[in-house]
This record gives sequence, C-alpha cells and structure tokens, in this order.
Amino acid sequence: MWGGRFSSRPAEIMQAINVSIGVDQRLWRQDLAGSRAHCRMLAKQGIVQSADAEAILGGLDAIESEIEAGTFPFRDQFEDIHMNVEARLNELIGEPSGRLHTARSRNDQVAVDFRLWVRDACDRSVAQLKALQAALLARAEQHAGDLMPGFTHLQTAQPVTLGHHLMAYVEMFGRDAGRFADARARMNESPLGAAALAGSPFPIDRQMTAAELGFDRPMANSLDAVSDRDFALESLAAASITAGHLSRLAEEIVIWMTPMFGFASLPDDLTTGSSIMPQKRNPDAAELVRAKTGRIMGSLVALSTVMKGLPLAYSKDMQEDKPPVFEAFDALDLALVAMTAMVSALQPNTERMAQAAGAGFSTATDLADWLVRELNLPFRKAHHVTGAAVKRAEGLGVDLAQLPLEEMQKLEPGITEAVYKVLTAQASCESRQSYGGTAPEQVRARIADWRARL
Amino acid sequence: MWGGRFSSRPAEIMQAINVSIGVDQRLWRQDLAGSRAHCRMLAKQGIVQSADAEAILGGLDAIESEIEAGTFPFRDQFEDIHMNVEARLNELIGEPSGRLHTARSRNDQVAVDFRLWVRDACDRSVAQLKALQAALLARAEQHAGDLMPGFTHLQTAQPVTLGHHLMAYVEMFGRDAGRFADARARMNESPLGAAALAGSPFPIDRQMTAAELGFDRPMANSLDAVSDRDFALESLAAASITAGHLSRLAEEIVIWMTPMFGFASLPDDLTTGSSIMPQKRNPDAAELVRAKTGRIMGSLVALSTVMKGLPLAYSKDMQEDKPPVFEAFDALDLALVAMTAMVSALQPNTERMAQAAGAGFSTATDLADWLVRELNLPFRKAHHVTGAAVKRAEGLGVDLAQLPLEEMQKLEPGITEAVYKVLTAQASCESRQSYGGTAPEQVRARIADWRARL
Amino acid sequence: MWGGRFSSRPAEIMQAINVSIGVDQRLWRQDLAGSRAHCRMLAKQGIVQSADAEAILGGLDAIESEIEAGTFPFRDQFEDIHMNVEARLNELIGEPSGRLHTARSRNDQVAVDFRLWVRDACDRSVAQLKALQAALLARAEQHAGDLMPGFTHLQTAQPVTLGHHLMAYVEMFGRDAGRFADARARMNESPLGAAALAGSPFPIDRQMTAAELGFDRPMANSLDAVSDRDFALESLAAASITAGHLSRLAEEIVIWMTPMFGFASLPDDLTTGSSIMPQKRNPDAAELVRAKTGRIMGSLVALSTVMKGLPLAYSKDMQEDKPPVFEAFDALDLALVAMTAMVSALQPNTERMAQAAGAGFSTATDLADWLVRELNLPFRKAHHVTGAAVKRAEGLGVDLAQLPLEEMQKLEPGITEAVYKVLTAQASCESRQSYGGTAPEQVRARIADWRARL
Amino acid sequence: MWGGRFSSRPAEIMQAINVSIGVDQRLWRQDLAGSRAHCRMLAKQGIVQSADAEAILGGLDAIESEIEAGTFPFRDQFEDIHMNVEARLNELIGEPSGRLHTARSRNDQVAVDFRLWVRDACDRSVAQLKALQAALLARAEQHAGDLMPGFTHLQTAQPVTLGHHLMAYVEMFGRDAGRFADARARMNESPLGAAALAGSPFPIDRQMTAAELGFDRPMANSLDAVSDRDFALESLAAASITAGHLSRLAEEIVIWMTPMFGFASLPDDLTTGSSIMPQKRNPDAAELVRAKTGRIMGSLVALSTVMKGLPLAYSKDMQEDKPPVFEAFDALDLALVAMTAMVSALQPNTERMAQAAGAGFSTATDLADWLVRELNLPFRKAHHVTGAAVKRAEGLGVDLAQLPLEEMQKLEPGITEAVYKVLTAQASCESRQSYGGTAPEQVRARIADWRARL
Repeated sequence: MWGGRFSSRPAEIMQAINVSIGVDQRLWRQDLAGSRAHCRMLAKQGIVQSADAEAILGGLDAIESEIEAGTFPFRDQFEDIHMNVEARLNELIGEPSGRLHTARSRNDQVAVDFRLWVRDACDRSVAQLKALQAALLARAEQHAGDLMPGFTHLQTAQPVTLGHHLMAYVEMFGRDAGRFADARARMNESPLGAAALAGSPFPIDRQMTAAELGFDRPMANSLDAVSDRDFALESLAAASITAGHLSRLAEEIVIWMTPMFGFASLPDDLTTGSSIMPQKRNPDAAELVRAKTGRIMGSLVALSTVMKGLPLAYSKDMQEDKPPVFEAFDALDLALVAMTAMVSALQPNTERMAQAAGAGFSTATDLADWLVRELNLPFRKAHHVTGAAVKRAEGLGVDLAQLPLEEMQKLEPGITEAVYKVLTAQASCESRQSYGGTAPEQVRARIADWRARL
Repeated sequence: MWGGRFSSRPAEIMQAINVSIGVDQRLWRQDLAGSRAHCRMLAKQGIVQSADAEAILGGLDAIESEIEAGTFPFRDQFEDIHMNVEARLNELIGEPSGRLHTARSRNDQVAVDFRLWVRDACDRSVAQLKALQAALLARAEQHAGDLMPGFTHLQTAQPVTLGHHLMAYVEMFGRDAGRFADARARMNESPLGAAALAGSPFPIDRQMTAAELGFDRPMANSLDAVSDRDFALESLAAASITAGHLSRLAEEIVIWMTPMFGFASLPDDLTTGSSIMPQKRNPDAAELVRAKTGRIMGSLVALSTVMKGLPLAYSKDMQEDKPPVFEAFDALDLALVAMTAMVSALQPNTERMAQAAGAGFSTATDLADWLVRELNLPFRKAHHVTGAAVKRAEGLGVDLAQLPLEEMQKLEPGITEAVYKVLTAQASCESRQSYGGTAPEQVRARIADWRARL
Repeated sequence: MWGGRFSSRPAEIMQAINVSIGVDQRLWRQDLAGSRAHCRMLAKQGIVQSADAEAILGGLDAIESEIEAGTFPFRDQFEDIHMNVEARLNELIGEPSGRLHTARSRNDQVAVDFRLWVRDACDRSVAQLKALQAALLARAEQHAGDLMPGFTHLQTAQPVTLGHHLMAYVEMFGRDAGRFADARARMNESPLGAAALAGSPFPIDRQMTAAELGFDRPMANSLDAVSDRDFALESLAAASITAGHLSRLAEEIVIWMTPMFGFASLPDDLTTGSSIMPQKRNPDAAELVRAKTGRIMGSLVALSTVMKGLPLAYSKDMQEDKPPVFEAFDALDLALVAMTAMVSALQPNTERMAQAAGAGFSTATDLADWLVRELNLPFRKAHHVTGAAVKRAEGLGVDLAQLPLEEMQKLEPGITEAVYKVLTAQASCESRQSYGGTAPEQVRARIADWRARL
Repeated sequence: MWGGRFSSRPAEIMQAINVSIGVDQRLWRQDLAGSRAHCRMLAKQGIVQSADAEAILGGLDAIESEIEAGTFPFRDQFEDIHMNVEARLNELIGEPSGRLHTARSRNDQVAVDFRLWVRDACDRSVAQLKALQAALLARAEQHAGDLMPGFTHLQTAQPVTLGHHLMAYVEMFGRDAGRFADARARMNESPLGAAALAGSPFPIDRQMTAAELGFDRPMANSLDAVSDRDFALESLAAASITAGHLSRLAEEIVIWMTPMFGFASLPDDLTTGSSIMPQKRNPDAAELVRAKTGRIMGSLVALSTVMKGLPLAYSKDMQEDKPPVFEAFDALDLALVAMTAMVSALQPNTERMAQAAGAGFSTATDLADWLVRELNLPFRKAHHVTGAAVKRAEGLGVDLAQLPLEEMQKLEPGITEAVYKVLTAQASCESRQSYGGTAPEQVRARIADWRARL
C-alpha cells in the first residue's frame, strides 16, 4: 500500500519516523558530560548513594571507551542517544543505572546535550573566523599598497588597494565572530534540572550542575528550559550571515580567476583541472563555499518553520532541531576552512590589477575633488568640468593623467600642473587619508589595530 | 591553524569540500541506466565498435551486481558516483571503458542521472499521495454522516460531517499529486548528448538515448541542459506545498487527540507512551509529520539560494543540488507514509464530536437563513433576530433548538414550529445541499467522483 | 505604554492589526465581478427578486464608476474591500443591498476575489514571458553565428555562439510560462458558494457562477474552498523559479558589462551614469532584476510559513496571504519588463566576444575528439596527447590552431593537416551539430521551432 | 509589447524599476540628521565656509518643516530621498547646497541613514519587549499559584501554574530584547566619511560626525562601510526569533480560547464577533500575530538572498534592503503591541484550568518520585508500580488521589497514607521547589528577580 521503501506495518512506520539515533549519536560526548554532572550532583545531595553514583560513573566511562573504540552498539530500537546510553548503562551496571534518571527527564537531558553541542559549535566558529581573519591580515599587509580597481556595480569606480579590499572582510568576519560570541553568552545557561517541564521535587542543586558543565547559571524557568530552541536559531542566524559574507568573497575569487579578469589564481591543490586543458584552473572550492550559503540559509528556515506556532512545553516536532543545525555547522566549518586556505594561497596578479585600477578614468572623482579643494569651484561646476575632461580624454584615447594641461585649461583656466599629482591611481589612493580610507598608511594602521585585538 | 576537524593541508581541505560520493552514490541506478543507453547509442551509430560496447555493458552489469551485493568499493578518491563507476569499469574491463565517455561529459551525465532520480521521486510521491487519498476516502465514507463542529478561528462555526472534513484533504492531496505530475511532464526531456555544454561533434542520436531512458524528447539547448536545475526546484516546491497540507492535517490530529478535545485517538503502535502514565498517548508521528514541513521548505530555500545569480553554464555550486532534494524527498516519503497509517488507524470519538457540533449555537446561521428564506426578512433584520435569539437562549442556558417557540415569537412573530427543523446540527448539515456542501449525500457523491478518478 | 506609534487603547490596536483595506483594495474589480455573478445567479434561482437584483447590479455599476473616478470613499472603519463595497452599496441602494449576501459569506467571497486576482497575475506573467522570449529570439537570430566563450566555472571551456547562449534562456522562460499555465489551470475552480465553510441551504447554482467568472467548474469541497491557499503558493513558486532564471541572465549582463569583460553595453536609458564619469554605465536595471529574486523568494517563504499547521477551516492568519502575493507579482512584473527591455537593447561587442571565444585553448576538446574520431585513439590516450599539445602551445605562446604540424606530430605521428579544420573557435562551433548543439544551423533550427510555437 | 502596466519606452521602465522614493522617504529624519552632522563637520574643518554651512543648515530646517507640514514635494524624478532633499535644498538656497556633498557620496549617505533607522527600530523593539514583559509579569504575579495543566505533545503531563507558564515567555522575550541590544551595539558605528567607497581626500573628521549621530566610533574600513548590510540581517534575525516566540504564545491563546478548551477569553475590543452569533469571540488579533511570523521570516530570507554573492563594493541590488526591513519591523511593532494588549486583557478561566490540571493522572510522576524518595524503590520498579496504579485508577474511574490506600498497597505494600500529600495537582506544583520550578514560591521569586531587572 505505501510503495516500496516501507512496510505497511504501522509499528515499522512509527519506528522509521521516530528513530533519531542516526542523527543524534553525534551528541554522545555531551550526553555523557551531562550525565556525569547530574550523577555527581545527585550523590552530593544525597539523592543517590555514593556506591550507586560510583557505579554509574564507572559505567559512563566504559561507555565512553566503547564509543571511542567504535565498539559501542548503537541500536535503532533504543530510538535516540539518551536511550542508547541508558540501555547500555543498564547492561553494564544493572540496577543502579536507573538511579541516574532521578530528578531528570529526557526533555531536560536533550536540551542540555544540544545546548552544549551548539555552544561548542559557536566556539569553533569563532576560532575558525579568527584563523580566517589572521590569514586575511597577513595578505592585507603584504598588499597594503598594491593597487586594484574599486568597483561599484562591477564598474570601475575609484582605485583602492588590495590590502584595503581584504581588510573589508576582516571587519565583516570580526562582526561575525562577535555574533557567535553573543549567541554563546546568551545560551550559556543550564536547562538541567527542569526535568520534564515543571522542575523537580528532589532537593537538586542546579547551580552545581550548571557550574560543572561550564554554564553561567541555571535557566530560570523550567518550561522555558525544555521548550525553546532560540539558542539554535540565533546560532544559525549567525552562521547564515557569516555564510553570506563568505559567498561574497567566494564570488570575488571566482570573478578574479576568470581569464577575462585574470586578477588572481589559486594553486593546483585548491583548484580542479582538466586532463585535456592542463592550463585550466576551476575555482571549485570557491564555488562550493558560495553554494554553502544555500544550505545554511535553508537550515535557518527549516528550524524557524519547525518552531513556528508550537504550544509549550515540549513537542516532538522539536526532534527536528538537530539535522538543520548539524548540517549548517558542517557546511560552515568546511567553508571557513576552505576559505582560509584559499586566502592564504591566493596568487594575485598585482600588475594586472594595478593596470585595471588606473583604467576607465578611475581618478575622475579626484579631479573633481581637486577643483573643489584647490580652486574652490562650486560642486556642480567641478563635476561639469570633470565630465568634460573625461569626454575629451576619451576622445583623444588617453587617460586623465595624460590629458595635456592646455586641454584642461580650455575647460577651466585655473587648472595648474599641480593637478597631475592627483590623477594617477597611486596618487588617488594615497590621498584618501580619512580614517578607514584606502591610503596605504590608513590600511596599515587598521591592520595594526586588528593585530592588537586578535 | 584550522582547528580540529581538518588538517591544514590544502589538498585535504580541497578533498573534503569537493568530494560528493557520500551523497551522490544514491544515483548509482540512474548512472548505470544513463551509461547503458549512451553505450548502445554509440554502438548503433558506429561511434564505438560492438565488441567494445559489449565489454562496457558487461562491465556495467558486473558493477550493478557488486553494488547490489554491497561489495562495490565506493572510494572518496574518485570524488563522485560517476568517477567511481568509471574507475571501477576501467579496473574491470580495461581500455574499452574509456570509449564510454566519447561524446559525453560529466556535465550531461550528472544532469541526466539527477533528472532520472527526481522523476522517480515525483512518481513515488504521486503513488503515495494516491494511497493517502485512498485511506482518506475509506474513512470519509465511513463517517460521511457523522457530525463534528466546523471551526473558523478554532471557534465553533457551523456543523459539518467528519467525512466532509476528510474530503477537504482528498482535494488538497489531489492537487498536490497534480503538481508532481506536471513537474514530471515538464522535466521529462533528456539532457544526454549536451556534452560539456556545447553539444557534440560526434554523430550521436539524442532521440534514441532519450527514448531508451523514458524521456519524451531530448532537451533543445545544450547550455540549458547542463545549467539548469529548475526541475528540482519545481519538485521541491510541489513537495513543500504538500508538506504544508500535511502539516495542517497533522495539527488537527494533535488537537483532536488532546484530552481537552478528545475527538480522536490513535492506537498504541502509532503513538508513544510513558511507563508511568500508561493512559498517555503522545501523537509523536503527527508532530513529526508537522515538523517535516520545516525540512522541506528549508530545502527549497537552500537550492533556490544556490542557483541565484549563477552565470551559465555549469558551476560547481550546482553540486549542492542533491542534498536538499534527497533530504526533502526522504522527509516527504516518511511523512506521507506515516500520515496514511494515521488516517487509516485514527479512532474518532464520534459521540464527542457530535456533541461539540451542536454546542455553541452552531446553527445560528441556519436560523438566520430560515428567516430570510421562509419569512423573506431582509438580511440585516434576520441577523438581528438571530442574535437576539442566541442571547436569549444563552440567558436561559439552553441551545437554540431548545428555545421555546414563544420566546422566538417575542423576537419575530412570524416564526413557526417549522423552524425547529433547521436548528439541530443534524438538520443543519443535511440542509447544506449545495454542490460541495456538507450534506451527507453531497459528501457521498464527491466520494463517488473520486473513486471513479483514482 | 506601547511606545509611540500606537495608542494604548485596545480597540485602536485591534483596528490597526485587523484592517486590510490598504492592501486588499486592489481586489476591487474581482470583488465586483464576484458580486455580479452571485447576484445574477440569486435572481435566476429565484432567491432574490429581480427588482432587488437590478438594484444591486445598478449599485455595483455605480461603485465601479466611483472607484474608477477616484471618488469612492475607501474607509478603514469598514476593514476590508468586501465591507467597504457592502457599506457603500447600502448607502447607495438601501435595503436590497443586504440581499446580495444571501448564501454567501466573506470566506468564499475573499477566496473567489483572490483566486481571480492570482489567475490574472499568472496570465500576465505568461504574456510577459512570451514577450521576453520574443525579444530573446530576435537577438538570438541576429547572433546565431557570433562566437563567444562558453564558460564553466566562469573559465573558458568551449566556444559557443551568442545566439545559442540566448536560446538557453528561451528554453528556461518557456518552462517558466508552462509553470504559470499549469498553476492557472489547477486553480481555475470556483470557491463561490462554499459560504462560510459548509455550503449553503439555499438552492444556489454554483456551476452558473463558476461559468460566469470564467472558472472551469466549482470546487468540490466547501471546507477546502475557503481554507486553502495552495494556488497562491504554487504561483509564488513559479514566480520564484522565474526570478531565479532572471537573476542568472541579470548576473551575466552585469558581468558582460564590466570593463574587464567588455562583452556588451546597454544604452543610456537603461543604465545610470555619473556626472563626473560620463563614460560610466552602471547596469542598475540588471542589478535590480537580480535583487528582485530576494523579494520573490521571501514572499514564498512568508506565505508558506503563514499556512503551516493551520487547522481548517478559515483562520484569520490567512488575511496575510495577499501582501506577499501582491509584492511578488509587482516585483516579477517589473523584472520581466526590465529584462525584456535590456535584452532588446543589449549591444554586444561581438568582436571582443569572438576573440575571447578562441583564447584559452578553448578547442582542446575538439582536438581530443578529432584524435578519437579520426585516429581511433583510445579516449585516455587522446586526452594525454591533447594535454601535451596544449602545454606545448602554451610554452610557445601560441594557440592550438597555430601550433605547427611538426610539433603536433612529435606528440602523435598520425596527426595530419586536416586537424586544423577543427581547431578554430569557428570550426569548433560548426562541428557541434548534435541536436541542441551550438552549431549555427542547429541554433537557427531551434529558433524556427520556437517561432512556430510562440 | 510589455503588456498593460508599463509603456514600452525603456526610459520609463528604467524609471519604474529604479525609483525608490516611495519606499525610502521614511528615512527623511535620518537623512536630515546625517546631513546636519556632515555640514557641521565640514564647517568645523574649514572645508566649507561658515556662511555656506549656515545656509545649508537653514535649508535643512526648512525642509524638515515642509516634510512635517506635509508640504514637501516628494518627486519620483529625483529617484530617492537623498536626491529629493538635495534637489529641494538647491531650490531653497541655491549654490551653497552643492557644498554639502563635498567629501560625501550617496553610498555612505544611504548607509548612514539606513543604519540610523535600523538602530531606532531595535531600540523600539527593546522598549516594546519590555512593555510586553511587564504585562506578563503583572499577570504572572496575579496567577502565580493558579493551576493549569502543563502539556507535552498537547497531552496533559504535569500540573504547573499559570504564572509559571507566563514567566516562560518573560524569559524568552528577555533573550529577544538581548538580541536586539547586541545587534544595536554591534551596528553602532558610523559609515559616514567612507564616501563612494575609498574614503576621502578632504581633511574630514569622522569621529566628530560619528559622535554627533550617537555612534560609538566610525567604521574602520570604507569599503565595508558602503557594502555591508549585516546589521540589517542581524536585526531581521532578532525580529524573526521574536516573532517565533510570539507565534507560540499566539497559538496558545487561540487554543485556550477554543470552546473545547475554554481556558481563557478576551474582551470584545480584542476579538471580532458575528452579528448572528453574539456569543462568538474570534481571536483575530492572536491569529494575526501568529501570521506575522511569516512576513518577518520572509523578510529575512529576502534580504539574505539579495546579499548572496554580491562582489564589493556597492551594487544596486542593495537598494532592495529597505522594503523587507521596513515591512518586518512594521509587522513586529504591531505584533508586539497587540500581544501586550492581549496579555493584559486575557481573562483566564482559572477554575477550568485547575480542573484540567488535575485530570489525566497528571500526578503520576509525583507518585513515582515519592516511591523513589520515600521508599527508595529502584527507578524502574517505581515506574512499574506507578503505571499499575494509574491503570487501576482508570479501571475504577477515579483519579490517583482518590485511589484507596488498600489498592495502592496491593501494588506496593510500603505505601502509606502520606502518599496522598503528593497526589493532588496543588501538592504536585508546590513540591517542585527546584530553582526555576513551578512551585508558587519559586515563581514569585523569579518574578521578583525580573522586577529588579526591568
């Protein structure tokens, strides 16, 4: 009746849709950590006797060894990681295993496990973002003075330096790291002890388990503790914004590497080639980084949709919280590492970039600014003269810096030889000394700021 | 430098981000089918010699046996399913294996494999939707005359029958099946022969390979053939809309099963329980079906995002097309099967439903309609009288059907004994004889229509 | 208490969140059409007397005139378009106005209005897509034989023709039009007569109103008729896929127009400039088309989210169906029209494109294919020889077509003078005669096919 | 050629797609603030003369008056708010108006305007969230001890108090406010002075303008300043998570108000009714709040999609940043205010809630915990005994608290009269004294904590 993949037996269908051990076994470390903390607290509070507690801790150690050795029997029949560990513990130590579940429920257990995992994922993302920033800083320093065209609308607008361009991403990734740090701080409260949803009648010490698991404090409402997944959503949002930044840099690498630009190349080990076109270098890694944005945004939409409109407290829908989070962070991990490798290995063709930086009358703004600054021309007039100069240069087939002074003076008699000092791409860059501008000194100063912060 | 999960060696990073065999090995049947069709065509056209073709076909058969037996060596070093098969074929038959790739490229090969997979997924979804419709029809027939409250805003509005309610979903799932069928028809063109992107200089017969693979015709533009994934997006959209419908029915099952409603229950094998509350039946399967909507919508967003703004022709970003599609259809499969099982097994509490159907002055509209129809009262007047009657009944603590005639006549002297024929939930339902209305005869007629169509 | 924008009076808050006339007044034509059809049916069935029906129809005509003249008093106090029209009708014709609402509810009224609007939007999109295809066909014909590089990974892969490239989009937009047509056909059923949710006890003729409004038939289930918005979701999905295609062509226009490519330009009236850089042409329209994808995908997500998990029948949530649909179609309209204008006006630099088409050893595949075809070299061997030839040519700083025969023969003695016939970009293109390939005859044949279809 | 809505003239199409004044005129206050700060800085630095600066400031004041008076001529021909203000300033004060644009570009101008707007929106959201928390705290205090069923899977699980339930939302909205505050802190850097993209050659003082506009510092990279919109994305993510929380509370209000629950009602001015069913109260406001989630998530997807893969620096795509942000915050504003009104006005039926809290053997966990705690039964045994007791009570048609002691003792002889102290819903709640648990003292302590913080 149901077609191939499933039997028509309700029990098997139920098993198929309900089982999550294939996904949540990734939480095993967190599950063991949570159980250990809970067990020690129960013993300290006299809720379980120390002999039982020791048996439990011993059993948890044995389970850890089994999992690390790859001998732990993960079994679908026990549905999820919590039940698998519980069942195995019972096999290993018998009756005391049941004591571990005093004053605890699967609802607070999964909440603590998942929170610990997401907290680690945020920490890892911060570390990876810092590594990427370090790679960018190194390259920015190296190219702080190397010219390239600054584009708007992918049209040449004004010359900038490659170092300045790379530093824009250092800023973006710095904010991204900040978002993960804020999410981490906000989520760092312990749900353990919320039990099923209402708290526990046992004299538990939630401060103790919170501290042992590295949480700042216990969560203040037991219903909230087992019902919310906003910490996961916030982390996914941080991941999604980061992925967006990565997609922009990836797009630029793809564009820079097209032969029509020829701005940069990547070494063989970060590209794929073709046996018949050995000169071809496909920027596969950059394209895949760009694509990971899709996966990560999709994960955010998935979990947001799952949570929409769920009444309190726990609903089974929330079991669908883990796949999008795991997938998003797997994708982000890979994208950050690949991007760091690409940034470190990128081989810019600085000559070609510099040449493009000076083409296309990219210093027209500099001429206009000079007319305002030096001749005190009204803005509108300065623009008009500049436009006319560009047209004349275009007609003569020369660049602005090569437009003879007499041609300039036909348009505005006040123009002097001094104007040529601002008409090269080099001069243009050097003149932009405002804080955060593209002048190489500025770029180097900002690099120094970041070095001090990282 | 990159933290734990990866080495810092670019080649390993590249391998990690580039490899897709873990995901795309699901395409093996399609890959073999595509290769067989291509091989036979090459032989027929004299592009490869028949001895070579036979060797290739023999090798492909051997590979099929290996995969089915679980002995095929899937290897990360060969990146994807196409290269794994190619490498194995070379190991098995040597030099002729290379001939298979004449007039073909990985670009058209993956396009054909993926299209075949998605086509199968659409067919499977249609079959599963029909099974679900059949289950609904059976239950609708059984309950064509059983009363339940029709809600708007989750407030009792008018009585309907349970059969009528279930038939609403038959309509929805019927349109869903139509969307999959339309997507299937639109995608049923063969990309094979597009080669890398520009077509082939060999005298290939694309009509032949198209026919052999069950396609209606070859795609008419080679760039389009290797560049687009709109067929996958359309299928994901159909899946997403279906999932939305499923989420609504799942929500209703959850609501019907809460003790506050008590409208229905599910047998043990489709619920989960609690060892300490043996009477508790958690509608986990319904909640998980509701949650799958998230995954499926997330997949649509993921692939849409991947494809946004990609220039022609193939970009590596498109390798990220398969995970969202596989995940979405896995989720949909499971959700459809689980919903079919729930619909078949649902145990409605028809008594409680009927009682609720008549409560809350649910026949007020019937009174108003009677006043218009029988007394020719202006609409506004009829509404006014009805409102007053409801208030009076509320005051007396009775239902409309129990409001004494003299009370009615105080409000509108023309009212007669005949009015009581429309004031029960039963009468209300039976009166709604308009096409598609909730009158049991109407419901049964619509069931008959669907039986004829399915 | 609530900060500035709102008063703290609940009634005002309720009014602010509940009112929709600002949005749904766009449905006025549809609302009048629905009311006229309903009124005529009521009269024909004898449910209202003809004098009343005539008064109503006269009133509706007066309202139409008022709206067209801009004198109709849209009032927030009447909440939505239906109540505004109803209130005005009462002002204009008095008591008979109430009769119009016999056997009808706001639930089926809004369902019919919105469905009519979406149906029109689909028709408009089909027409606009056909206009865009016509523009592409005209340009494809003009450039059927003009060379350009075919890219994969934005790296030069094989030469194609510009006509072939443009025809890829004709295919995509053709499928897009098909999706709108399918959506239109599926939605073309009338909800009118479903009343609040359960159908009507009046002897209405739903076939008549369906026919009058151009629907194929009445919807077969009254609960479904007032509860579902899948027709809107399907249309949004079609719009979103179309927008994705547009974003790809827009991206290409942006890339082609960057001075680094210099493949094409757009006239002044489709670009924006700069007063000081008069040579600058910013492809704003292309960028805005690319960006509209976001709005349209966002609308699909918005409505999918709204509908998730809503129990039947009507819930007020569904009032949020219209803003995303209106916004998405406004965006799509504009994007399609702007793209059509750009396609018609695009000024390709065919010389530069042709030059790029031949660069980068883009005919390496042709050499390999020649070795297989003419010398019957094994595939692998042919690839090896080709790779070596490319390396040799690169070393000599020449293109493959300029590599001396003796150099070729050093790598494979069987190579003859005849090989040079396949080594130019022109020859490469011409050789790809497979169905759907880039050979100019093929391109022209496909153009002819489309001309016959459009 | 393009169908009705547009002419076929490219210039008109360009105008239609390019114009944004209809949307961005909402930025007028921010635009004037930015211009004033810039003007004062230019004067202080001697870049413009004080007479000119005074003229400009006077002109800006005049424009402010005009806009506030509704007499300002917003004109499509000037495209956006910046150009409209610029054009008007020129009309009002002539030549000096041009001086205002020295060392500034539309790129940094729009970046500063939009950032100021989003900052205000975050502040407003924080204030509204605090008002909502205050409303919840007041109601929680009032109902700190009132019983209601705590649900999991919408099945009765354990008794909680209504105060505890409401306090769960205080926690959620507290984290939401934290997210807006973090976003605000991170975005509070000034892009002004980045000019077109490269910074300025004029001796501008970016610290001064930053301070004047309330920013903590100038942004450190000019390319980043004009290119990124992550501040908007982060705010949308915060809004989306908040909307998710609101959707859950809204869902609960809808469920509580259905007659099948009868847990709560809302006064007339926050519901809609029906003229013929005067007792009906539709929770329209709650449903609309629930639906706004869709709009807000859709906006996040829209802007994320727009930004994906855009190369630096400014691209026109980014003009599509404002509609999703405006729409999302309009929706959030309304939803927060409406929810605050509903929370304040909600009329819980505490009797019915309490009755439901004790039904369904909701204290089974308490019995099991008592057996573990008092009789030191192994966990598994305690569960077994409890399950048997529930079954027995169910068989007798009584609740656990009514199950005679001898029945209890048949299952476990050690059970004493003392057990009945934990078997009422009241006792169950009172026993859950763990930090954050549902015991009324705990709830009141948490309310006190929040009162101290707000």
